Amino acid sequence: MSKGPAKAKRGIPSKVENFSDWYPFIVEASDLVDKRYPIKGMDVWRPYGWKTMRLIDSLTHSEMERTEHEEVNFPLLIPENLLEKENALVSRLKRARENGIDPDELRDEEEEGGFKKEVYWVKHAGENDLDIPMFLRPTSETAMYTMFPLWIRSHKDLPLKIYQMVNTFRYETKQTRSFIRVREIHFFEAHTAHADEECASRQIAEDLEIVDNLMDKLCLPIIKAKRPVWDTFPGAYYTIGIDAVMPNGRTLQVASCHHYRDQWAKAFDITYENLDAQQQHVHQTTYGMSERLLGAIVGMHGDDNGLIMPPAIAPFQIVICPMIRKNSEVDTIAESNRIAGILRAAGLRVKVDARDLHAGQKYYDWEIKGVPLRLDIGPRDMAQGTAYAALRTGGKEPLEVSNIVEICRQKLDEISEELRRRSQAHMTDVMIELPKFFEQNGTWNIDGEVEDGKIYEIAFDGTDADAEIIEKHTGLTFLGDSTEEYETEKPCHMSGKMTKRRVILAKTY
Amino acid sequence: MSKGPAKAKRGIPSKVENFSDWYPFIVEASDLVDKRYPIKGMDVWRPYGWKTMRLIDSLTHSEMERTEHEEVNFPLLIPENLLEKENALVSRLKRARENGIDPDELRDEEEEGGFKKEVYWVKHAGENDLDIPMFLRPTSETAMYTMFPLWIRSHKDLPLKIYQMVNTFRYETKQTRSFIRVREIHFFEAHTAHADEECASRQIAEDLEIVDNLMDKLCLPIIKAKRPVWDTFPGAYYTIGIDAVMPNGRTLQVASCHHYRDQWAKAFDITYENLDAQQQHVHQTTYGMSERLLGAIVGMHGDDNGLIMPPAIAPFQIVICPMIRKNSEVDTIAESNRIAGILRAAGLRVKVDARDLHAGQKYYDWEIKGVPLRLDIGPRDMAQGTAYAALRTGGKEPLEVSNIVEICRQKLDEISEELRRRSQAHMTDVMIELPKFFEQNGTWNIDGEVEDGKIYEIAFDGTDADAEIIEKHTGLTFLGDSTEEYETEKPCHMSGKMTKRRVILAKTY
Repeated sequence: MSKGPAKAKRGIPSKVENFSDWYPFIVEASDLVDKRYPIKGMDVWRPYGWKTMRLIDSLTHSEMERTEHEEVNFPLLIPENLLEKENALVSRLKRARENGIDPDELRDEEEEGGFKKEVYWVKHAGENDLDIPMFLRPTSETAMYTMFPLWIRSHKDLPLKIYQMVNTFRYETKQTRSFIRVREIHFFEAHTAHADEECASRQIAEDLEIVDNLMDKLCLPIIKAKRPVWDTFPGAYYTIGIDAVMPNGRTLQVASCHHYRDQWAKAFDITYENLDAQQQHVHQTTYGMSERLLGAIVGMHGDDNGLIMPPAIAPFQIVICPMIRKNSEVDTIAESNRIAGILRAAGLRVKVDARDLHAGQKYYDWEIKGVPLRLDIGPRDMAQGTAYAALRTGGKEPLEVSNIVEICRQKLDEISEELRRRSQAHMTDVMIELPKFFEQNGTWNIDGEVEDGKIYEIAFDGTDADAEIIEKHTGLTFLGDSTEEYETEKPCHMSGKMTKRRVILAKTY
Repeated sequence: MSKGPAKAKRGIPSKVENFSDWYPFIVEASDLVDKRYPIKGMDVWRPYGWKTMRLIDSLTHSEMERTEHEEVNFPLLIPENLLEKENALVSRLKRARENGIDPDELRDEEEEGGFKKEVYWVKHAGENDLDIPMFLRPTSETAMYTMFPLWIRSHKDLPLKIYQMVNTFRYETKQTRSFIRVREIHFFEAHTAHADEECASRQIAEDLEIVDNLMDKLCLPIIKAKRPVWDTFPGAYYTIGIDAVMPNGRTLQVASCHHYRDQWAKAFDITYENLDAQQQHVHQTTYGMSERLLGAIVGMHGDDNGLIMPPAIAPFQIVICPMIRKNSEVDTIAESNRIAGILRAAGLRVKVDARDLHAGQKYYDWEIKGVPLRLDIGPRDMAQGTAYAALRTGGKEPLEVSNIVEICRQKLDEISEELRRRSQAHMTDVMIELPKFFEQNGTWNIDGEVEDGKIYEIAFDGTDADAEIIEKHTGLTFLGDSTEEYETEKPCHMSGKMTKRRVILAKTY
């Protein structure tokens, strides 16, 4: 990382040197959110932030439509007694373990039945005590799977693929951070039911393909890793976590996919009549994402001048700034509006900033908001039939107005490419191999230092106990087995056994 | 109303004879919602219902964009202590009354500070009691006006025009009804702040224009009436209620606009620096709508075969049903998909139903869902280059496939027109003049009967006491002064004074 002097441009903290100040500063200075609402961890989405989030959502809607998921909307409140089934599921898994089925697959802390300690409770309404307390959904398995038995009867009803985008709630006791750790969460959740395990597995593959499509649009490289058993969602057969990498080298889980097999179906009695007229439990999956996507975009792409919005989700992809000269005969505002009209007709999102302000102030405003492309229109530009472009990723050049749509599209593509290149370079830069472990006099030692700001990979084929040793020694968290294995076998970091398993470790948000 | 025999077509209750059974039956049978979620008054939005609601929302989004409102998203939870300002406002209005300013304008029941008895309370999170109880928003004045002083500084910040579409909550103790009276409400609310009362009044005019545009798309005639003072929203200077008319002649308030003058601004200390560098309170308005719009659409347009969706918000505007003949050489499915492709490319929402079912079953499914236009494609139609159209509002005819986009658009317009004609005819049919009142031996009597299923209008220039007499005698509710006055003066129904004021009375939902 660069260690140059702090670039405290007009009050913006340096991103590289002081990311933990830069991030909270920039989310407010760019008008994404207002944190002054009087509940900690519940921000107000301002128009610019909400528009950005809705554009991210619209990419998700498109993918959902392409893959034939249908949108639903479930009630926010869940009666406490529905949790009994969820608790039964968890204890069933416990019994399975006690009876020797997959004995090592669960640790104790996951078995306490999840969310009770993390939810907001509604026990009163008006002046009444409610008979059955309710809680604000932290996620909707319980609510949805109560309805699934009513909707699924035969194999013709499968696959059932639904999703919703809703507010969810978690009573966070840790320090909150806009988009990253909040108490009201703008959330996406897809839930599916299938005839058998294999169909559900294919759904997970489809989910990961959707993730790839979205991340490409958001210009974010990611790590997809099958979480270790102790970090698997309660009730899941396996969990794949999708992590973005932040500038400080910490990973941020932005999405996750869970394969539930028929575990929830057994708890909620979700069956269908198969082709042999037998009742059979469905196999289920979920796929979740949240406003953390926006947190990753802010964190990864921004710089010391503010945000840089990936063109696919920029509320304004282009801002046009007419140079306003008093008493000039040349109407730069009219020309700006004309060009904006042409660009808008081609489907681009364009803002004309005709405010009577110094150009420098306008540039500052749109840079901090991360508008990818700025076009300045002055009398000289007009005489030459050009607009003077400034790319938010760097570089300035005159563009031919006669072919402005095509050229702007090309420039926006270049900006996306540049953002991908930078974020991928960062990922490559921070991901290194973990130093070797060696045993000496019965204790484990590490042959080198664990640096801050790095993500580590190892070939690993050890036990949970081995993993615990590594986590304890390094202070890193196992993200799990990368979906991209090593191409050829390598010796396991601890056992020495040959393996293709490529395990990722990181400090996480 | 027709008194023919009940048309119990495949289990659907008769709408005309038994609207109170027809409505709950049809909202579930058409897959709009599922009422089996285990909290009364909180339905699950199924894909078809949610898609319809989102299409209604998208009309609203367009109008908001046209009128330069910006979308925000506020937290759901509101700390109880913020209510203190709202309570202060209400008591200020009370003092104003006690000091002789507008003494008759308030009745007591509005002064108890609104929502406390109607909200859901969050007093616990995880295993903790919260220091400050919070409630689920019933509407967002309190939340928003806490932030407005931070956003508004000078006249340059005005007008401030924002809106949000969110879930709101009301602890209903009355009988719940899908869309019409629910406990979790899909809600639209616009909030504006202006330099002075006149600017705020112009905003109300703009709101009513938006209402007209939307209702035209939804094919719903409405009554816009300035609510009597005792039915004005607490803290409002005046309220305009927008009521749809249901088949049983009851009115359903689907929207409302409030002019707040500077009353809330004084309570929440929302000021701006005016052109004379003086601090001045803003004038505010709100405009709200809810999922009741969908309730009105279901109620007004449906018939004994199911829903009839106005084309502007129909999830599928056209369904194409290929006639499937085993061993036929003519591929009606391919032709259906080809036509669907042409229609979709023109921006129409089209479904091809290629299920291997009896045509009658398909027709039933799409009729109950209210798809406006059905095209049947059989081998004979193909040979003739036609598609056989069935309009959901009645009528069948072959359409030329060679010009299918233009003809379908025309047919959809005809269907919209027919829905407008029918609902307007209903409105005209049910709205009549109230029989005269006369005083005899010190008591008031009415010179005729008040019929069920009718809406009444009167020329009225009386006092609140007069209004109370009328309400008590008739069992009707004052909707208030119609925004459409009489063209020439008429004698007031009670006082005999000449007036243009046209007051509407109805039984309400």
